[in-house]
Amino acid sequence: MKISELSRRTGVPVASIKYFLRQGLLPAGRATAATLAEYGDEHVQRLRLIKALTTLGGLSIAATRDVLGAVDQADSSEGALGAISYALPVPVAAQGAAGPEEEAEADESAAAEVAELLATLEWQAPDTSPHVLGLTAALKELRRLDARYGPGELAAYAALAESVARLDLERAVGVEDPVALAERAVIVFAICAPVFELLRRLAQENQVRRRVAGADADSTPPR
Amino acid sequence: MKISELSRRTGVPVASIKYFLRQGLLPAGRATAATLAEYGDEHVQRLRLIKALTTLGGLSIAATRDVLGAVDQADSSEGALGAISYALPVPVAAQGAAGPEEEAEADESAAAEVAELLATLEWQAPDTSPHVLGLTAALKELRRLDARYGPGELAAYAALAESVARLDLERAVGVEDPVALAERAVIVFAICAPVFELLRRLAQENQVRRRVAGADADSTPPR
Repeated sequence: MKISELSRRTGVPVASIKYFLRQGLLPAGRATAATLAEYGDEHVQRLRLIKALTTLGGLSIAATRDVLGAVDQADSSEGALGAISYALPVPVAAQGAAGPEEEAEADESAAAEVAELLATLEWQAPDTSPHVLGLTAALKELRRLDARYGPGELAAYAALAESVARLDLERAVGVEDPVALAERAVIVFAICAPVFELLRRLAQENQVRRRVAGADADSTPPR
Repeated sequence: MKISELSRRTGVPVASIKYFLRQGLLPAGRATAATLAEYGDEHVQRLRLIKALTTLGGLSIAATRDVLGAVDQADSSEGALGAISYALPVPVAAQGAAGPEEEAEADESAAAEVAELLATLEWQAPDTSPHVLGLTAALKELRRLDARYGPGELAAYAALAESVARLDLERAVGVEDPVALAERAVIVFAICAPVFELLRRLAQENQVRRRVAGADADSTPPR
């Protein structure tokens, strides 16, 4: 198909497709003339994935390139899942020390909290995992805001996170071809995260609405 | 305290403090001379909140201004929670129709899926809720990627989201002063979301590592 047809089928403007081609996110089509190329179904599929990552997933062009690189290098199912999990941007990046002397101490104590959590849960992840570093940075920040998690509270969240991750990985089960599995994993890891966040926000909204209704009922004078 | 001391206590550079003052995120200090102002503990607290929202929470300056506006207008505890929940940016914004004719149909069917989910769960939220619109947009996109949720799958995620939201709201319980509650709500809604996402990513990492270990064990020839 021509680039115009590719645009029609994916809803991605021709100018954006050309941009993705120049950025190396989308493989070139088969040249049929000096300024014409022919595109196939694999371009449709890849373009839909790029669109989903950059819009729903909120990934930058650079992050999208990294993730797609991990997809294309997927040579085994298990390796693909791990590589993609690390290629995706982390919600909270570990930050450099912010200056004051007490910083190092706060770092250490947040790191100890994360290490203890992992040990309790028997979760396997190296100290250098971007997820471990990100969680440490987040806990440190919450301490500074005087909003640290109470004893047991973080563990309660972690138990729920474990159940969510189990559902996530089930969604990637049964796909045999490594590249197809990698694509599925990208969708699950990058796009189902916003879906869950939306469900949580909806659940919060519902619970707040019920509280407001309850408060109103309490304050309504009896007739 | 002077602006230099405010900077030292919060780790926010003086230039950034001046920027937040100009942008109206931080109330002006008490003027003590033509070019000098005196800041108080409320500035320290507000500045820590701004820093947390813009770094950990990933909010833009405009979004931060909206959220802080909702905090300052909080006149009742319940109203504060609702206003802040709506002021925070939604992970997936509802997108305009992307053109093709089948779009309207996809919209309708995703909207029906969300409506059915809310009815089943007895969650209260109007059709115009940003969370309802965002979830509809996300489900539509997943359909297009041929990665829709299976029957019961979305409900399973929603049940977990409900438990997470319950933990979230418990964190905001017991704070009486509306502005203090609003600040706590901002932290819980905006900053605990990345923490949960990190816990989920860690849980995924753990489960993938265990699978890889299992696969390796399976493929190791017996000695």
